[in-house]
Amino acid sequence: MIVADLSMIPMGSGTSASEYVRAVHEVLRDSGVNFVTGPMSTSIETETMEKLFQIVEKANNRLAAMGVQRIVTMVRIDFRLDKDISMNTKLKACKAD
Amino acid sequence: MIVADLSMIPMGSGTSASEYVRAVHEVLRDSGVNFVTGPMSTSIETETMEKLFQIVEKANNRLAAMGVQRIVTMVRIDFRLDKDISMNTKLKACKAD
Amino acid sequence: MIVADLSMIPMGSGTSASEYVRAVHEVLRDSGVNFVTGPMSTSIETETMEKLFQIVEKANNRLAAMGVQRIVTMVRIDFRLDKDISMNTKLKACKAD
Amino acid sequence: MIVADLSMIPMGSGTSASEYVRAVHEVLRDSGVNFVTGPMSTSIETETMEKLFQIVEKANNRLAAMGVQRIVTMVRIDFRLDKDISMNTKLKACKAD
Repeated sequence: MIVADLSMIPMGSGTSASEYVRAVHEVLRDSGVNFVTGPMSTSIETETMEKLFQIVEKANNRLAAMGVQRIVTMVRIDFRLDKDISMNTKLKACKAD
Repeated sequence: MIVADLSMIPMGSGTSASEYVRAVHEVLRDSGVNFVTGPMSTSIETETMEKLFQIVEKANNRLAAMGVQRIVTMVRIDFRLDKDISMNTKLKACKAD
Repeated sequence: MIVADLSMIPMGSGTSASEYVRAVHEVLRDSGVNFVTGPMSTSIETETMEKLFQIVEKANNRLAAMGVQRIVTMVRIDFRLDKDISMNTKLKACKAD
Repeated sequence: MIVADLSMIPMGSGTSASEYVRAVHEVLRDSGVNFVTGPMSTSIETETMEKLFQIVEKANNRLAAMGVQRIVTMVRIDFRLDKDISMNTKLKACKAD
């Protein structure tokens, strides 16, 4: 599984972003992926990198359709080959011991 | 309040980072700040930017003391002047309808 | 044009990343896109978001093929709808005046 | 030396950020540190982490003084203990054969 953090910042659309965060969450729900909402970003897990990128593109297009004129997107991806990970295994590892 | 996302990546210390994440959380607990653990990063709230930066520096020094030879730190800070924010208000805004 | 910053951190492969940065640059050259190397990241411009993501995926696969067992990728994307941008227009804007 | 990437995004102040990027560069020049401007971020080198953070805080205060109501700051720090680095050594390493 690919685990990633996604954060999107609309510029030129006022100081509040919550309306846009909710729209991104709608895209995530429609995509059927697991996600966890944090105070500063949304974590996502997808089977493939391709799936992740499709979602990021859809989320950008959604905000554009809402009239946002400039969007800065940050994606941070954890791609691990030595063992299978998920959001859950990552959260547990931090708390273990 | 300043809300920030912190993510620290040890290089040259194997593929597992959980030992180091737990050490950073110890620094956070010792500092007395509120924090929320996510799958990809830790969110923190502090009264001032100075306090946040002291913590980030302490966390780097802690990992260095554990023998890590290279540390990549990412901090993303939300500094808002038009209203008071906290991790809680930010989380609620995302879920509001 | 989409302008993006790309930074890839190999974990568990020693403290030096230069061999891997050069491999990523090879992927970029093979892809035929313009890119600018900075001290901390590589900036890229692509016609579409899809093209950018294909490159990021290829770069991950290249590092995996070199034996890297864990890769943290950061992509920051500037998607602007109100005017056409390029790495060049962005650099000029910072220096204007 | 500490090498870091700095990117600051003003929200609620229109889609153009160049005026603010130039103000941040002024803060950097006043601080006497070396910096390199990229299309998506500014790279900085400082003797200490403390110096870096003083600059980031000054830059935030400068934008606030210009009337920006919300600022998202991203700092990515390369802290290396196994050898001395600078923006120059990092750039050369990427180009070395």
